[in-house]
Amino acid sequence: MTKPKQLWATKNSEKNELQQRVEQFMSGQDVMLDHYLFEFDIQASKVHAQGLQRIDILSQTELDQITASLDELLSQFKSGKFVLDQSFEDGHSAIEYFLTEQLGDLGKKIHTGRSRNDQVMVATRLYCKQALVELKQSCIDIAKACLTQAEQNKNSVMPGYTHIQRAVVSSWGLWFASFAESFCDNALLVQQTLDWIDANPLGTAAGYGVNLQLDRDYTTEALGFGRMQINPMYVQNSRGKFELQILMAFKQAMLDIRRLAWDLSLFTSAEFNLVKLPDLFSTGSSIMPNKRNPDTVELMRAQYAKLVGVFNEIESLLSLPSGYQRDLQNTKAPLINGITEALSCLALVPELLSGIDICHRNCEKAIEPAMFATDKAVELAREGVPFRQAYQQLKDNYQDLASRSPNQSLEERVSPGACANLKLSEMANRLENV
Amino acid sequence: MTKPKQLWATKNSEKNELQQRVEQFMSGQDVMLDHYLFEFDIQASKVHAQGLQRIDILSQTELDQITASLDELLSQFKSGKFVLDQSFEDGHSAIEYFLTEQLGDLGKKIHTGRSRNDQVMVATRLYCKQALVELKQSCIDIAKACLTQAEQNKNSVMPGYTHIQRAVVSSWGLWFASFAESFCDNALLVQQTLDWIDANPLGTAAGYGVNLQLDRDYTTEALGFGRMQINPMYVQNSRGKFELQILMAFKQAMLDIRRLAWDLSLFTSAEFNLVKLPDLFSTGSSIMPNKRNPDTVELMRAQYAKLVGVFNEIESLLSLPSGYQRDLQNTKAPLINGITEALSCLALVPELLSGIDICHRNCEKAIEPAMFATDKAVELAREGVPFRQAYQQLKDNYQDLASRSPNQSLEERVSPGACANLKLSEMANRLENV
Amino acid sequence: MTKPKQLWATKNSEKNELQQRVEQFMSGQDVMLDHYLFEFDIQASKVHAQGLQRIDILSQTELDQITASLDELLSQFKSGKFVLDQSFEDGHSAIEYFLTEQLGDLGKKIHTGRSRNDQVMVATRLYCKQALVELKQSCIDIAKACLTQAEQNKNSVMPGYTHIQRAVVSSWGLWFASFAESFCDNALLVQQTLDWIDANPLGTAAGYGVNLQLDRDYTTEALGFGRMQINPMYVQNSRGKFELQILMAFKQAMLDIRRLAWDLSLFTSAEFNLVKLPDLFSTGSSIMPNKRNPDTVELMRAQYAKLVGVFNEIESLLSLPSGYQRDLQNTKAPLINGITEALSCLALVPELLSGIDICHRNCEKAIEPAMFATDKAVELAREGVPFRQAYQQLKDNYQDLASRSPNQSLEERVSPGACANLKLSEMANRLENV
Amino acid sequence: MTKPKQLWATKNSEKNELQQRVEQFMSGQDVMLDHYLFEFDIQASKVHAQGLQRIDILSQTELDQITASLDELLSQFKSGKFVLDQSFEDGHSAIEYFLTEQLGDLGKKIHTGRSRNDQVMVATRLYCKQALVELKQSCIDIAKACLTQAEQNKNSVMPGYTHIQRAVVSSWGLWFASFAESFCDNALLVQQTLDWIDANPLGTAAGYGVNLQLDRDYTTEALGFGRMQINPMYVQNSRGKFELQILMAFKQAMLDIRRLAWDLSLFTSAEFNLVKLPDLFSTGSSIMPNKRNPDTVELMRAQYAKLVGVFNEIESLLSLPSGYQRDLQNTKAPLINGITEALSCLALVPELLSGIDICHRNCEKAIEPAMFATDKAVELAREGVPFRQAYQQLKDNYQDLASRSPNQSLEERVSPGACANLKLSEMANRLENV
Repeated sequence: MTKPKQLWATKNSEKNELQQRVEQFMSGQDVMLDHYLFEFDIQASKVHAQGLQRIDILSQTELDQITASLDELLSQFKSGKFVLDQSFEDGHSAIEYFLTEQLGDLGKKIHTGRSRNDQVMVATRLYCKQALVELKQSCIDIAKACLTQAEQNKNSVMPGYTHIQRAVVSSWGLWFASFAESFCDNALLVQQTLDWIDANPLGTAAGYGVNLQLDRDYTTEALGFGRMQINPMYVQNSRGKFELQILMAFKQAMLDIRRLAWDLSLFTSAEFNLVKLPDLFSTGSSIMPNKRNPDTVELMRAQYAKLVGVFNEIESLLSLPSGYQRDLQNTKAPLINGITEALSCLALVPELLSGIDICHRNCEKAIEPAMFATDKAVELAREGVPFRQAYQQLKDNYQDLASRSPNQSLEERVSPGACANLKLSEMANRLENV
Repeated sequence: MTKPKQLWATKNSEKNELQQRVEQFMSGQDVMLDHYLFEFDIQASKVHAQGLQRIDILSQTELDQITASLDELLSQFKSGKFVLDQSFEDGHSAIEYFLTEQLGDLGKKIHTGRSRNDQVMVATRLYCKQALVELKQSCIDIAKACLTQAEQNKNSVMPGYTHIQRAVVSSWGLWFASFAESFCDNALLVQQTLDWIDANPLGTAAGYGVNLQLDRDYTTEALGFGRMQINPMYVQNSRGKFELQILMAFKQAMLDIRRLAWDLSLFTSAEFNLVKLPDLFSTGSSIMPNKRNPDTVELMRAQYAKLVGVFNEIESLLSLPSGYQRDLQNTKAPLINGITEALSCLALVPELLSGIDICHRNCEKAIEPAMFATDKAVELAREGVPFRQAYQQLKDNYQDLASRSPNQSLEERVSPGACANLKLSEMANRLENV
Repeated sequence: MTKPKQLWATKNSEKNELQQRVEQFMSGQDVMLDHYLFEFDIQASKVHAQGLQRIDILSQTELDQITASLDELLSQFKSGKFVLDQSFEDGHSAIEYFLTEQLGDLGKKIHTGRSRNDQVMVATRLYCKQALVELKQSCIDIAKACLTQAEQNKNSVMPGYTHIQRAVVSSWGLWFASFAESFCDNALLVQQTLDWIDANPLGTAAGYGVNLQLDRDYTTEALGFGRMQINPMYVQNSRGKFELQILMAFKQAMLDIRRLAWDLSLFTSAEFNLVKLPDLFSTGSSIMPNKRNPDTVELMRAQYAKLVGVFNEIESLLSLPSGYQRDLQNTKAPLINGITEALSCLALVPELLSGIDICHRNCEKAIEPAMFATDKAVELAREGVPFRQAYQQLKDNYQDLASRSPNQSLEERVSPGACANLKLSEMANRLENV
Repeated sequence: MTKPKQLWATKNSEKNELQQRVEQFMSGQDVMLDHYLFEFDIQASKVHAQGLQRIDILSQTELDQITASLDELLSQFKSGKFVLDQSFEDGHSAIEYFLTEQLGDLGKKIHTGRSRNDQVMVATRLYCKQALVELKQSCIDIAKACLTQAEQNKNSVMPGYTHIQRAVVSSWGLWFASFAESFCDNALLVQQTLDWIDANPLGTAAGYGVNLQLDRDYTTEALGFGRMQINPMYVQNSRGKFELQILMAFKQAMLDIRRLAWDLSLFTSAEFNLVKLPDLFSTGSSIMPNKRNPDTVELMRAQYAKLVGVFNEIESLLSLPSGYQRDLQNTKAPLINGITEALSCLALVPELLSGIDICHRNCEKAIEPAMFATDKAVELAREGVPFRQAYQQLKDNYQDLASRSPNQSLEERVSPGACANLKLSEMANRLENV
């Protein structure tokens, strides 16, 4: 049996070299990307069939047959018996092909009342929801790893930098807590994004609905969506639009990873020498036998760029009028690639954080008398000296500050959020309730 | 009296030409941009002073004097008597300068326990909150204008396009409703973004807090923030991070405007000729006396690019380690410029939408028999013909469809969200509850 | 025999699940991308070995053995006998592994005086040079196809648009010629870019050169480079920098393809109906039996976005201090993916252009009397009426223009470059000399 | 006398608030940006008038009058007597207005055979050519400052970094030379870009030429262009296209500045402490009296982001069909803003470079024994030990290397481009010939 690449192909002419190049250009990696969507496409197809049964397009028996066949397809796909490859135009065609193969004419009914346009939308949206659930979990895991480290190191002295210049005494607790709070916010943003995109596109066909009383309330609930995406043209117009918002949630998390990686990249230099990374996260050089490089951290820093790329790629596609245009197919690769790479990076971060080995002695050696000047200026201000005057007074007189203790400085930094008052439990509480 | 540009300048040396170029490079348009922030900076300064009084850095009398002086500054700024110009380094210095000018040593106390770092953050965040409130209102206004037009035109025939090719019969109701739902979602996103950024950075100084028991709970409430942004280093690290999320909310709205403008740009061509724009929104040519061009709509389409620019600009700045770096100052111009231009564009859209004049006859003339083929295929499917078979059968036989009525086609398109079931009141309800 | 993934690995410990995830994250698709570079890497390795022989690191016999072994590797790679897969860390290691496997200790000498840092640079640069040569040829092919069509259609009437509004009478000759000149410029730009990047990085090791009198003049010439890239640190700093310039040359070509695709997308709509595409370049719909969509053209339009993505991705990586950082490894995927997709798109364009079927009758029907107004205004100006006055006079009086002939209008448009004076041979001459 | 904003306005109705908002949205900062173009617009207008005289549209007397009037306008503009402000729609209208004001009907002839479309193109291109000339000079100045410093510091020891890890001994000469060669390449790229865009758009009107025998050869030569941009539609299509290429030349220079700034930002930290910046290039903190921050360098690092923004902004505008669309007006602001800011930044760099004060003792202290390992491995390889074996042998035995001298290491690094063979005069020669 030959698998027709396009179920709606006009004629089955021989394909010359040019035709092959055109086809190759048009499908690209599409069917391979559908590996990420196939499970969701089958799930949505089952619910679509249930919906068709509810409005008497399919009988209960027909529904049962289709359901069984789709279950079989899923099982064969997972076991590797059914191979989704370039002999199919895409995953959507593969489903219809499999059903028709197994069920004959009945298989040809599955596409009633739907288009590949809403079919790809619903599969993609289900995929994105799961990706966001995983992203949220990663954010929570990272925030928790930070909270644990912050608690353990709340009294560990660390030089506080601004402009990559030593500024004031600070603590590792404060540093870890900064990422803890950031990843609380990131987790919240993921949840908001999940809520925002949680709308069912199935049942809108090619952007204009159909002349069938589709039971969209049912499919919305059966697929676990929070609401129906009502307008069929809006469904098509949301392609890319929703992708950007989803990628934005990934970007926010990865933006913090880039900053974290920058910190670690500097802190592991011989010059700063404030931390050591777990062995696992560094590597050697092919020419310099003496080197141990923080390669993993550098690749984490580099990872944000991938999201910049895929985000801009999608955005650039969207200068279009309303309705489906084939350009939109090209949202798929950047979406899936961006998500996949970001998730695999984020999954490594909790263990990196937990494995950071602080060089306490070097941290303490980095504290210079001048770093107490701000504390002292505030003390003077507390005693009534106008702050600006205290500031001028201290500008070049740090000698008297040499006797100060970094740890005392930390203890006195009592403003909410500062070293003596990190408010970690408040962050932990927020995290519980995201 | 000479206004010192920098309150903390080391020496008041003569400035040569190179120094002036360096200063010009460093401050750029900064102080002019502070016009957008100044009111919020004064507001936050008042609350900061109240906070200082609560922990006895200021007496009640001192607070009253400072408050009065800040009120006076605001009033002078609004009336134009106080000119915020390049004789000041920035708006923050201007406030301290004004207070010191009026109150002497007392003025020098205002900076106790704060840094320009948290000062600019709190002013910017208050500004952004107001910008988002305005954006949300614009989204609601646009959605409402769309709902009104959708209701009025729910039975107006319109060709439905995919691939800019005539596909099926559709209605203007469906077209307007697509933007209505999109702007419901946009308004919701703005509200989520407002919630996400609604955190008070004041009281975190230069990123490490201070050795003062600042009453941040009080300032958080007094400034109307939903929560405290706890960690001082996170406050600094959120610079740019929050800006991107804010601009993303603007982008989503403007992304739809770009699509809307594309539609109108095509629909007003002689070839489509489906609508006429209000006179106000079109202009003439300098060389071709015969032309009436949809310039306004084209500039609306172009406006999204501005947001792409400012977003990428900010994003590119942020590859940095933790803590304040001067690079971050350059987030200000793209943020404010992006917001200002987008708001001025969005404010024109409701009137554009309300003024659209549909050429009903041309819309009806654009309906060809083939555009009923999908309806017919579904009818056959309803009668039991497998859809794919019905599809093949219809592929080149449209003649029989010539007698169909577009309006009947609309009436039969009953799937939820489609022409016969636009669900406008559901959208209106959602809009009420954003 | 076990293939060591890293030739310089410290210990060969068992790898747990986390280690595998870290490794997976670090190498990613790297070795698969090296398929594009492998041939060039082997070529440069041969020349590097020749260089080593010239300074007596290798004897002539050793060189011969290494050369033979590298030839064998290339031959096995091409025939598929040698499989470059994820059992190697990258293509560079694979070469050293193969040589050591075949030649024992001698194989271990190949890395003398070089680092993977200059090794990957030289292979990438040779790859890029070839990619640019192919790009240049594509630009020339497209320009020629345009010139042929312009010549054939120089008298074919076409409506001239501005603002997607009918403006004046124009010709298909002028339209094709606009792309011809653009692709002349694109070809020239490619040549400039080729010249700009034509510098040999081999012999700079990890960014600091080596304590060997490497014969870089020889390797520069033997590899066909126009000049030596002298400074070893600059070689590393040019990673990404050169890639951006190369991609920019691709962008310029694809920018025009996007515009071309936009034109064709509009012109093939029922509303414009000015051209028909070759069958090969359009496809059907899965739900609408009546549709023939210009999908290929839409995907060509979409292709520019890919380059936006990869360009921004690389650019985002480069906010780094001098010298090699591992982040730079991630320039490889976007570079190769961007180039590969663009070349496969461009290769289709000449046949698309040659196959365009102009609907002459529709083009002529699109000419309205008002489109002669500008010609008439200029005629009046020629007779001495001030242009602005002529313009005002004509503003609403087009009736008299109804009798004009479009073809005569074309004949009178004699300004250099305009319809009556397309200057195609001048373009053809330029093309010869690029 | 009232200045009409639009010379071709249909009616002079009262403008209500909405009209004003529309106008404000449509013109934006346009007329202020025209300050940058005005001189070039006047220059091109003079040449256009000369061209009109050559084909007898203007008499010699008329040409003389127009020329005198345009000279007067330029002189008044420079002296501030003629104010180009928002009472004009744009600079182009201002010129026609001024001429008509001075010369009556004769002034109305200036627009014969041209459109604002080619008028703005020619003025912008002349502006861009001058901007590129300035950019090239900046690149040369920076390269020269680097060469001078490289020569002076060719024997100054510096730790050589990869991965921000100490790798091998290097020299300041090598570091300065890396930027010297990079800016040689940048200067060459600017020259290539100048050649590429050096094409005259004047005489192509609104994209379709005119029915006049315009003497474009004459205007091309008189305006100093290298060639005519032949096709009128291509002229319009090159808007944005050329801008991107111009900005790319700026980007390449600023990309290196970002890297330079990164280096200096790290090197001035207390941890690295390798250099001191001139006082002029650092500033204080508003809260921390002890700080001297490298603010200028950070703002230089930040400056690349501006170019990323404006480049992406323009690129995003260009997803359009052929011919002029009003969207293209919005290329003006990002082009001019990007150029202006980059030039003002680059102008500071030579003095920054010349003023760098190297802390030689700290540089020498940073050299650790392990940094000789690569040299030693190569030595062993030179003696016949296979490199990979030498590498393994040295991996953890650095003690023997402790007695080595950094300066000797530099002297032995003889590979072309390395510390002992910087090839500065070759770079200087290249610079002479750009």
